[in-house]
Amino acid sequence: MLLSAAHSVPASADTLIANVNGMRFDRDGDVERFAAMLIDDDGRVAKLYQRRDRLPKDVDYRLDGDGRVLIPSFIDSHVHLIDTGLAAMILDLSDTATLAEAQAKIADYAAQYPNRSWIIGRGWNQEKWGLGRFPTAADLDAAVGDRPVWMMRAHGHAGWANSAAIAAAGVTAETADPDGGRILRGDGNAPAGVFVDNAMDSIASLVPEPRPEERDLALQKAQQLLLAHGITAVADMGTTIDGWQALRRAGDKGRLRIRVMGYAAGLDEMVTIAGAEPTPWLYGDRLHLGGVKLYLDGALGSRGAWLLDDYADAPGERGLPLKSGTQLRNLMSRAAMAGFQPAVHAIGDAANREVLDAIAELRETYEGDRRWRIEHAQVIDPVDLPRFARLDAIASVQPIHQTSDRPMAEARLGPDRLLGAYAWNSLIENGTPVAFGSDSPVEPVDVWAGIAAAVTRQDAAGRPFGGWMPQERISREQALAGFTAAGAYAGEAEGRFGSLAPGEWADFLFVSADPVMVPESALRNVEVEETWLAGARVFGGD
Amino acid sequence: MLLSAAHSVPASADTLIANVNGMRFDRDGDVERFAAMLIDDDGRVAKLYQRRDRLPKDVDYRLDGDGRVLIPSFIDSHVHLIDTGLAAMILDLSDTATLAEAQAKIADYAAQYPNRSWIIGRGWNQEKWGLGRFPTAADLDAAVGDRPVWMMRAHGHAGWANSAAIAAAGVTAETADPDGGRILRGDGNAPAGVFVDNAMDSIASLVPEPRPEERDLALQKAQQLLLAHGITAVADMGTTIDGWQALRRAGDKGRLRIRVMGYAAGLDEMVTIAGAEPTPWLYGDRLHLGGVKLYLDGALGSRGAWLLDDYADAPGERGLPLKSGTQLRNLMSRAAMAGFQPAVHAIGDAANREVLDAIAELRETYEGDRRWRIEHAQVIDPVDLPRFARLDAIASVQPIHQTSDRPMAEARLGPDRLLGAYAWNSLIENGTPVAFGSDSPVEPVDVWAGIAAAVTRQDAAGRPFGGWMPQERISREQALAGFTAAGAYAGEAEGRFGSLAPGEWADFLFVSADPVMVPESALRNVEVEETWLAGARVFGGD
Repeated sequence: MLLSAAHSVPASADTLIANVNGMRFDRDGDVERFAAMLIDDDGRVAKLYQRRDRLPKDVDYRLDGDGRVLIPSFIDSHVHLIDTGLAAMILDLSDTATLAEAQAKIADYAAQYPNRSWIIGRGWNQEKWGLGRFPTAADLDAAVGDRPVWMMRAHGHAGWANSAAIAAAGVTAETADPDGGRILRGDGNAPAGVFVDNAMDSIASLVPEPRPEERDLALQKAQQLLLAHGITAVADMGTTIDGWQALRRAGDKGRLRIRVMGYAAGLDEMVTIAGAEPTPWLYGDRLHLGGVKLYLDGALGSRGAWLLDDYADAPGERGLPLKSGTQLRNLMSRAAMAGFQPAVHAIGDAANREVLDAIAELRETYEGDRRWRIEHAQVIDPVDLPRFARLDAIASVQPIHQTSDRPMAEARLGPDRLLGAYAWNSLIENGTPVAFGSDSPVEPVDVWAGIAAAVTRQDAAGRPFGGWMPQERISREQALAGFTAAGAYAGEAEGRFGSLAPGEWADFLFVSADPVMVPESALRNVEVEETWLAGARVFGGD
Repeated sequence: MLLSAAHSVPASADTLIANVNGMRFDRDGDVERFAAMLIDDDGRVAKLYQRRDRLPKDVDYRLDGDGRVLIPSFIDSHVHLIDTGLAAMILDLSDTATLAEAQAKIADYAAQYPNRSWIIGRGWNQEKWGLGRFPTAADLDAAVGDRPVWMMRAHGHAGWANSAAIAAAGVTAETADPDGGRILRGDGNAPAGVFVDNAMDSIASLVPEPRPEERDLALQKAQQLLLAHGITAVADMGTTIDGWQALRRAGDKGRLRIRVMGYAAGLDEMVTIAGAEPTPWLYGDRLHLGGVKLYLDGALGSRGAWLLDDYADAPGERGLPLKSGTQLRNLMSRAAMAGFQPAVHAIGDAANREVLDAIAELRETYEGDRRWRIEHAQVIDPVDLPRFARLDAIASVQPIHQTSDRPMAEARLGPDRLLGAYAWNSLIENGTPVAFGSDSPVEPVDVWAGIAAAVTRQDAAGRPFGGWMPQERISREQALAGFTAAGAYAGEAEGRFGSLAPGEWADFLFVSADPVMVPESALRNVEVEETWLAGARVFGGD
């Protein structure tokens, strides 16, 4: 590959990237192929060329792509950005196969950091351990007894505390469950060790907050991770003022190398961050606070998702709405009134129906292109599936959840409800804009794994044969659109980035294989070789 | 005056301002005069010319100054920026001469805004009313009884509530005075209506917070006011995250037309706003968070200032330190450790001594150019006066306070202590950097009134004859330096703005008379005709 300077001091530094196998997607998954791309001196796409087109001669830089595959860089429509970086800085239990292995890892880690006042970790999953029960405080005490320990479960909706942490929080057999939360109980009603949803606060609120310099470091770590996976833009679901300030610090110092579409962590944070209206797009379209993240329910794994009928594996339980329908409508309305985009977390079919009902009502008042988002949209009553498109609601889903969740989802939901679970093809066929994400740090930021899951409905080992609920498989082009143009649309960013359309930022990847042509089984193995942002290489190469 | 474009599309838009009576000041008050100024295309001073110098011919714009007086624009080293704007939006009692007049004004205002749930105002002063006592809740009830009313006193260290406000706060005869605060009492120990220093919180915390759009409006109002008075830079003493966000919104949208040196409202706000170190200078040196404001005592008027000996007019009372010496040192140390500049409010002689002691100790640890600031530095034991210069401490003072405070200060302090009160000449003669400000909205942002007070030690009516404590008069050049170059030094901004030195931003004024030549009695009447920021006119003209 040759990078040659046509002029030593260019007046206008146009760059031509020639001889590529280029492709771009509209948000429905239609592909346009191209052979060369001209980038203007700002870093925006100036023009795309077909193989037969005459290429411009008078450019400042000319890059020969050697026939490599060039695609738009990825948009992850659901990440927790600072947490993604912080997760890389705390103990990670996601690779533990048994409780004993986790205990050993926790004990080692605590011994390695004798001065940390709390031992914090994440990523455990008792289903994966095949434990058949939730772990207990005693299980943790066996690993670390001298300090409080707090380990978040894989999906973030439950936490596991040791006795020192429970004592520090003052939680006893007499402590009642909070609204929207549950304390698992042992002998004599004593807290057993696991705290679900809102009950997590009693422990989590004691964990020392990260300092600003830790947030700055977390952001840098998250950026490195994302760029290495070809992701140049994210929807940050739950931006706090402290996270926002870290983003601004990075922006102010020229260290912001991804594009962040912020969704504030609730109305108060939204107002604190942005004031009376969405912020402008800042730092050359690298930062924007345009929406607000709201929670309506919890997760399936912890049985916090709000279902229309009982959990198949826990008769009498249906999960919990975290707020009333009136509260939900008031919050969505206040956001919409000021021009912000509400993005509501809804996992259970009851939660999804409630949000759809709310959107149906609010649309009467807030006309025009509002782009109501439902985050996760995981379990949907089949009768509600066509409502997304009718209501112009965006489904923001995480394909990789499907493969991780499969055994758990089958247990929680039973066979009948699976018809409307992770039902991406049905949503797309109905005309719903479907944006894809990872939910990092809940899942890794591995876009190819997400694409493979969406296309094959199989896990990395190829299970189940033929794909799970294979009628919900989608095409590769649709999957690629979900991680590019559809993500931009969901973030109100089309025209800025996401599709390599002329005028948009030249954010793109060189990848190791043509993702539309490669065998399905090879999708997970496609590699991001280089990541470019605004016409400059920010990962790979050399 | 002629503005002629030499080229219609200039490659580099240099501007020559010729034929002016220009002057600039170093921070000690030495004057350099000049006849023309060349401004580069960024808006920075490129070169100053003497009358005999040959002027450049090849410029893009040429402005004939018609011999008018050009001086650096002003820096106000102590304002409460958002409050300055908010004060312009609430009821202003500062022009009331009697309690009855105030009552009538409050009643009228309440009738004008029947939908406001609270009636808020500021600027009363029982001394000015000649009331001989503090006003009472009953006095306020007589004006407005149907809603809570809360009126801040002129210097902001006391507030006056009506019965509805006191009832809303639940303050009764049984309520104890909080630490660092006092509830004035009436019959049977019942709250009388006035709440001093920390006791204000019980009422003030109930007042609805301004909404972000009100803060945005307040900032715009404050900017207009400041620019009209020739002030293009301020030290914002007590920046909150909400105020900061309003400043960023203005910056992001190109609406920031003053330079703001932020001093965070305490350590927590400092960390929230800036993180681990001061922010960069943002928006072309228009915004910076480089320090933290700390309070050690209250004000003289409310007898909250912390004195070494009893108040002359209240035997047994010496005011209160708002924090212990250890707390003060810890806070100053944490700020200095991270490279922030502490600015400590100290009014009484005990408070000033305590801060000087703290600086003397901290200097051992935090070497180099630290620029410890003492805000107000109002009453200083004469033995402490030389310590400022020895410790490299900056005195940030407000000349106009001296004229407003005079009768009150004489009553509170008695004759002996006046020797070290408002002792600007002594400080300057000792070599102390003295920066001038207004404390707006406590006092109006009238720089000429401040200069006149510093130079004449007389009020607007010329009282007292010969000036109060006339040995503390300073020269006009020193006063002008206090509002220009010394203010930049106090804000660590020299080299960026404040003295019209080549390389600094071209922030300047055309004024109606030569402030160094005009009779002293005419200083208050000098007018700001035009205010320029970064080489562009932002007030006046046409």
